[in-house]
Amino acid sequence: MSKNGIKIATIGGGSSYTPELIEGFIKRYDELPVKDIYLVDIEEGKEKLNIVGNLAKRMVEKSGLDINIHLTLDRQEAIKDADFVTTQFRVGLLDARISDEKIPLKYNVIGQETTGPGGFAKALRTIPVILDICEDIKRLAPNAWLINFTNPSGIVTEAALKYTDVKTIGLCNVPIGMVSGAADILNVSMDRIKIDFAGLNHLVWGTKVYLDGDDVTEQLIEKMADGKSMSMKNIKDFPWQGDFIKSLGMMPCPYHRYYYQSDQMLLDEKKDAETVGTRGEVVKNVEKDLFELYKDENLSVKPPQLAKRGGAHYSDAACSLINAIYNDKKEIHTVNVKNNGTILDLPDNVVIETNCVVDKNGAHPTNIGHVPSKIRGLMQVVKAYEELTVLSAVEGDYFAGLQALTIHPLVPSCEVAKNILDDILEKNREYLTQFK
Amino acid sequence: MSKNGIKIATIGGGSSYTPELIEGFIKRYDELPVKDIYLVDIEEGKEKLNIVGNLAKRMVEKSGLDINIHLTLDRQEAIKDADFVTTQFRVGLLDARISDEKIPLKYNVIGQETTGPGGFAKALRTIPVILDICEDIKRLAPNAWLINFTNPSGIVTEAALKYTDVKTIGLCNVPIGMVSGAADILNVSMDRIKIDFAGLNHLVWGTKVYLDGDDVTEQLIEKMADGKSMSMKNIKDFPWQGDFIKSLGMMPCPYHRYYYQSDQMLLDEKKDAETVGTRGEVVKNVEKDLFELYKDENLSVKPPQLAKRGGAHYSDAACSLINAIYNDKKEIHTVNVKNNGTILDLPDNVVIETNCVVDKNGAHPTNIGHVPSKIRGLMQVVKAYEELTVLSAVEGDYFAGLQALTIHPLVPSCEVAKNILDDILEKNREYLTQFK
Amino acid sequence: MSKNGIKIATIGGGSSYTPELIEGFIKRYDELPVKDIYLVDIEEGKEKLNIVGNLAKRMVEKSGLDINIHLTLDRQEAIKDADFVTTQFRVGLLDARISDEKIPLKYNVIGQETTGPGGFAKALRTIPVILDICEDIKRLAPNAWLINFTNPSGIVTEAALKYTDVKTIGLCNVPIGMVSGAADILNVSMDRIKIDFAGLNHLVWGTKVYLDGDDVTEQLIEKMADGKSMSMKNIKDFPWQGDFIKSLGMMPCPYHRYYYQSDQMLLDEKKDAETVGTRGEVVKNVEKDLFELYKDENLSVKPPQLAKRGGAHYSDAACSLINAIYNDKKEIHTVNVKNNGTILDLPDNVVIETNCVVDKNGAHPTNIGHVPSKIRGLMQVVKAYEELTVLSAVEGDYFAGLQALTIHPLVPSCEVAKNILDDILEKNREYLTQFK
Amino acid sequence: MSKNGIKIATIGGGSSYTPELIEGFIKRYDELPVKDIYLVDIEEGKEKLNIVGNLAKRMVEKSGLDINIHLTLDRQEAIKDADFVTTQFRVGLLDARISDEKIPLKYNVIGQETTGPGGFAKALRTIPVILDICEDIKRLAPNAWLINFTNPSGIVTEAALKYTDVKTIGLCNVPIGMVSGAADILNVSMDRIKIDFAGLNHLVWGTKVYLDGDDVTEQLIEKMADGKSMSMKNIKDFPWQGDFIKSLGMMPCPYHRYYYQSDQMLLDEKKDAETVGTRGEVVKNVEKDLFELYKDENLSVKPPQLAKRGGAHYSDAACSLINAIYNDKKEIHTVNVKNNGTILDLPDNVVIETNCVVDKNGAHPTNIGHVPSKIRGLMQVVKAYEELTVLSAVEGDYFAGLQALTIHPLVPSCEVAKNILDDILEKNREYLTQFK
Repeated sequence: MSKNGIKIATIGGGSSYTPELIEGFIKRYDELPVKDIYLVDIEEGKEKLNIVGNLAKRMVEKSGLDINIHLTLDRQEAIKDADFVTTQFRVGLLDARISDEKIPLKYNVIGQETTGPGGFAKALRTIPVILDICEDIKRLAPNAWLINFTNPSGIVTEAALKYTDVKTIGLCNVPIGMVSGAADILNVSMDRIKIDFAGLNHLVWGTKVYLDGDDVTEQLIEKMADGKSMSMKNIKDFPWQGDFIKSLGMMPCPYHRYYYQSDQMLLDEKKDAETVGTRGEVVKNVEKDLFELYKDENLSVKPPQLAKRGGAHYSDAACSLINAIYNDKKEIHTVNVKNNGTILDLPDNVVIETNCVVDKNGAHPTNIGHVPSKIRGLMQVVKAYEELTVLSAVEGDYFAGLQALTIHPLVPSCEVAKNILDDILEKNREYLTQFK
Repeated sequence: MSKNGIKIATIGGGSSYTPELIEGFIKRYDELPVKDIYLVDIEEGKEKLNIVGNLAKRMVEKSGLDINIHLTLDRQEAIKDADFVTTQFRVGLLDARISDEKIPLKYNVIGQETTGPGGFAKALRTIPVILDICEDIKRLAPNAWLINFTNPSGIVTEAALKYTDVKTIGLCNVPIGMVSGAADILNVSMDRIKIDFAGLNHLVWGTKVYLDGDDVTEQLIEKMADGKSMSMKNIKDFPWQGDFIKSLGMMPCPYHRYYYQSDQMLLDEKKDAETVGTRGEVVKNVEKDLFELYKDENLSVKPPQLAKRGGAHYSDAACSLINAIYNDKKEIHTVNVKNNGTILDLPDNVVIETNCVVDKNGAHPTNIGHVPSKIRGLMQVVKAYEELTVLSAVEGDYFAGLQALTIHPLVPSCEVAKNILDDILEKNREYLTQFK
Repeated sequence: MSKNGIKIATIGGGSSYTPELIEGFIKRYDELPVKDIYLVDIEEGKEKLNIVGNLAKRMVEKSGLDINIHLTLDRQEAIKDADFVTTQFRVGLLDARISDEKIPLKYNVIGQETTGPGGFAKALRTIPVILDICEDIKRLAPNAWLINFTNPSGIVTEAALKYTDVKTIGLCNVPIGMVSGAADILNVSMDRIKIDFAGLNHLVWGTKVYLDGDDVTEQLIEKMADGKSMSMKNIKDFPWQGDFIKSLGMMPCPYHRYYYQSDQMLLDEKKDAETVGTRGEVVKNVEKDLFELYKDENLSVKPPQLAKRGGAHYSDAACSLINAIYNDKKEIHTVNVKNNGTILDLPDNVVIETNCVVDKNGAHPTNIGHVPSKIRGLMQVVKAYEELTVLSAVEGDYFAGLQALTIHPLVPSCEVAKNILDDILEKNREYLTQFK
Repeated sequence: MSKNGIKIATIGGGSSYTPELIEGFIKRYDELPVKDIYLVDIEEGKEKLNIVGNLAKRMVEKSGLDINIHLTLDRQEAIKDADFVTTQFRVGLLDARISDEKIPLKYNVIGQETTGPGGFAKALRTIPVILDICEDIKRLAPNAWLINFTNPSGIVTEAALKYTDVKTIGLCNVPIGMVSGAADILNVSMDRIKIDFAGLNHLVWGTKVYLDGDDVTEQLIEKMADGKSMSMKNIKDFPWQGDFIKSLGMMPCPYHRYYYQSDQMLLDEKKDAETVGTRGEVVKNVEKDLFELYKDENLSVKPPQLAKRGGAHYSDAACSLINAIYNDKKEIHTVNVKNNGTILDLPDNVVIETNCVVDKNGAHPTNIGHVPSKIRGLMQVVKAYEELTVLSAVEGDYFAGLQALTIHPLVPSCEVAKNILDDILEKNREYLTQFK
């Protein structure tokens, strides 16, 4: 690793999240001496890149630190000799997301950015690009770490780890959000909470929750059963059924609602779609407003409105992870890594989301063993769906895609699976050239 | 094993299936010298026991063989020193089945005898009884084999194998039905077909199909994709979607429709319930007719009408299995046994349905290893449901039951799961004394 | 498979075992219509090939069957379109074996044809040749079965299965010898005995022994503890220590003596080497006598003297296995196949020796699960040695070879391992071109 | 955990190691407020207990801290309400150790305190006592942590974890000694070194060695191959064979010499036994001198001579571990814990030695997955020996003991195993009442 000055390449640098990322590097500069940040985007994202890139430059200027922000459309220039490559790109932009949400709804199936057929479509578009990026890294920055936050983060990370040997760690803000949620419910500060996580990205359970090291899972569950709950910005916040949450005996993640309360979630989604629009449509407006804000030449900090965007803590988690690697911190982070026997109920070569000791050599999961049967089955069937999705995305395998969607718990039949798949392929034709 | 005359005890001897069982023993008498058959039933089944028992006596008499049919309400007398105990009882009779079918339908969920909440309810009622029977066997006939065909056969067998050390083998007519179906599709005789089976009872896949030892899976799939199909008497017979069956690349079992075509199956069930009645209601009439036939003192053979009943080949499979054990045949039978690593993707101590070499020491599965991800996930989530069901049934564990139903692929939410569970407990209160 | 006439290619056709093979095919002709047998050997074996080949021709002639014996030095001609390729070749002939035996003895280590450093040396010589043969098969007879009896049979088979996709089954006469031994001890005929086998080639345990299907393991062990024992022609026949055999509670194979009685076996070997010569030297004389016999133009049957050779039943086991495949017999044979989870305590991709159901599609092991800790550790350490041996042989990897020998239970230190390895490489330089 | 003042109970408090333990607690007092230390011993150890106990009191007095040293022969008083129970007792004292060393030597087998038959004998004596202690803990201090350093530490810990549910962590100074050794070889300070450990107690490999987070394994191996080595006080320090250490490619532990250089180690031991005496005899003198020193009323610090004793860092490692638990440090320690799938090549319920994150809830291993075949086999066979040893010790199972010794790589035959076992049972009769 470069000793005098770290180089960061951020793919999808025109994202609205970028100010948080920049803020994160500024905050940590003392121990994490970032010298160059390359924000790279594609032609279609040029305008956004310029807007957010200029804000980033103003933020750095204000900090007085020796950090250089580079804006570029040349991905290879950005990646060359980078120490860390972070990804926050979105193939097809928000319009593709909106289509991902609407196609399943047409068939009375939940349409969500990362869960179910929506996430499947996003994976098909994203995986070829991530593999391209890995090719670049292999050639131009073979020692670089790839910190992926592009969704569906677990599936995309699995593709990178299965098909390349780029050092990749997948990241998501759900675990940190659950820590924050548990802290809220227990009315304590976040840093006193630790959670044992086991599962997959957007399907992770907090199997034990600790306050100052003491197991408080039962108390937390009692409070959740009493109606206190926690959620992400973009997931409906109705309370968990009391007996259910007690029988579960652990902390679900917000995305679990799609599985444990599929009927209600579908109803809500349909109502939203007819009134305020799908989440993608809502976000599109939020983004428009954000970029208006970002344009303000007097703005030189991350604006508080960004918090509404839904991905809060995402970029901060990335900076913190990069810091732990760079400084060999041996800290515990909850990230997406190769299973390799950590959870005995899943194959070795798949990606899981779990607590890891992070040091200069990467993220090392602490052992889990077998998980209880009550969470095992759901985790396994969704993982099988994910494996088939990766296969379909990499090989352009129609049959694998059809099986992936058919076995997904949210899809009611092979006929519906086929209809959705055909619509996805039709609608995303320009991005899905792997399918002949 | 008794060398001069085998003793069979058949629990639920008043079942309409009994004539097939008797026929099976008569046919095999030369190599399987059955001396005593105890047909045992409970007080409520006394009338049926007498009707079918008398038919059995007439059948034996006609055969001229030295077999004694005993009718009794004393289970322990029947079990004492038995060589084989077979089970075909139905706790709560057909009325309980009808209730099992109707409760889920009330919540827009598939209501089926063995699959989903209906099978769950049946397991709750049946498992305490099978464990009682195992107690009797342990005490009165410790060397006896328990051949279980009481449904849900895999779950009931798992309970027996997890909680007792009675030598138990679970049996189902689905595999033989699939062999028969494949033979029909390929237009050959059944004995030329061999199928590699992997999965769970009523969720078993034919991973390879052989004709005279040659792999003909692809040809078979092509024909199935063209619309030829196969099914059981009690499962709707619409054809499989062509691309789906090709992408699966193996032979599904009829009960797979509940998972792969949930939406259509639910619609059909609802229509049936409103018109001809649920399957249980239909069967109730079939049975009534059958017993009228059985009463005919001139009848001394298994009447052909029994084939309509749905359980065809069931009893014949049992006789054939008993024969293989008794005569140390080392034949291959498809039965339900402890996994013990046969399928590496399932826990060791659960029950699977697979090909086994059967000899005097029981059923020894041929090794499978890992199964493809396309069938793995569904198999795993259903197995997790089954394990929780066994736990709930044995311990009277409400929470385990709630989790079992919630994770079942056919149940759309924890709220619906709770409603169904509460209805089941309420409706079956007299049988479910394990729940306080 | 050719329906009108099977073609067999026997590599190492000049072996003294060939008459048994021919006899085996003659005996089974009715159900196994062998048409062409190609006996192939190398230039150095030409004389023996002619002698034994002519005997084979006389045997066939006497039988009056329509079998053609072909003698050739052209391996590819032999393999082309063969249905079965059997191997019984010996790279370096008996002189190499004698060197394999003598090198370890020089360092006070057991020197044995297949066990320990002697077997290691033989594997280094043999594996490159078997991979060459597999290349030929792939190209010239892609549907052929490779029936390997070349020693060390398990290791050689593992190399073929790991590095090629030729359909390979490894064979050894030890299991059939153990059945014969158990029958002798119990004083019954062999066909009434069945043994559950688990382990590796030349390290296989009879975990249960059955007489007419009844478990008689305990009785057998009692008799073995009383001094009755069993052994192979080429392994010393002193009795097992009584408490030891009882504590083992299962039937060891003759080669277990090298591990369980290393000290005594070494003493005996050293004494033999100084008096009658090593086993290889003895065999060399036996062979010389045999070939003198074979030359007799009046001889047209397998001479009884062959039984002394040590490999009795070897070729018969091969014919029987070929018959089971050809006729889709679904019979149980004890052979060497890929583990694939059969024994949960060994890796999936290694070769084990165990009971398999043999049909047209190969040998399918019956499931074993975990083995008891008393046999597990030895099985595992020897398997690790075998894996390293395969790696060393294929890649010419000196370090893998050094580790293989160091961890072998019969080698007392890394220094001795290095000395033996260096001597082996020096002595076998002409055969070990994979080592640079 | 008691918030105002920790209670420690040290079983075998009269050990010569106690001053290091006391020093460790004094050093850490600021963050680890120990209030009461109960040094408990048995009648035969009373004199030593008084000597070392009084030294402990003087050490505490000198520190001026509010720590109370209690000397007692009443183990239950010591354990009652303890927060941590540490063990450093030696059943049969050094005389038993000397006998453990001499019995194997009589049969030309390595006689070592913890490795081979010597360790086996020690396990037989120690395990019944540790289970008794666990009983006391269960009853009198159910929340206490048992920190076991009594040897053979891995085996004793395995017994505690298999047969009780006392929260037990096994400790050894070998890993810290290897860190120290690597630092010496690389000529850097210890705190810059981190090692990935995998294996069993006294059979642990350093699979990777890091300097400031960078992988320096290769450099270290090069230096070790050049003759630099590392060792413990009580293990012969001849250099590793160069090619061997390179082919291993990882750092062996000092006890590996018994396996990788058995012949040389045996020679050395025999020479020592005839000249200076066995290690036990040497230690007996060292101890005598130490206790003379300890008696000195002017001594109020740990004397430097203790370092010669061989167990250096042992007690310090214990204090550090206790501190990490008490203060929920999430630090990495190398300890003995239940495998639970950490190393996929060993059973779940056995004890391994590996890196763990230590917090208030115990020691959580970081995941390892499969280990390379070159270390796998030896690890597995020794683990099988350990499992049989635990079984033999707990059940008094002669046959399990005979198998344990027979499969141990250092024992050349079942006959020698039996002789050694019989001698051990005879010699230790008073301690081994579990054997009838």
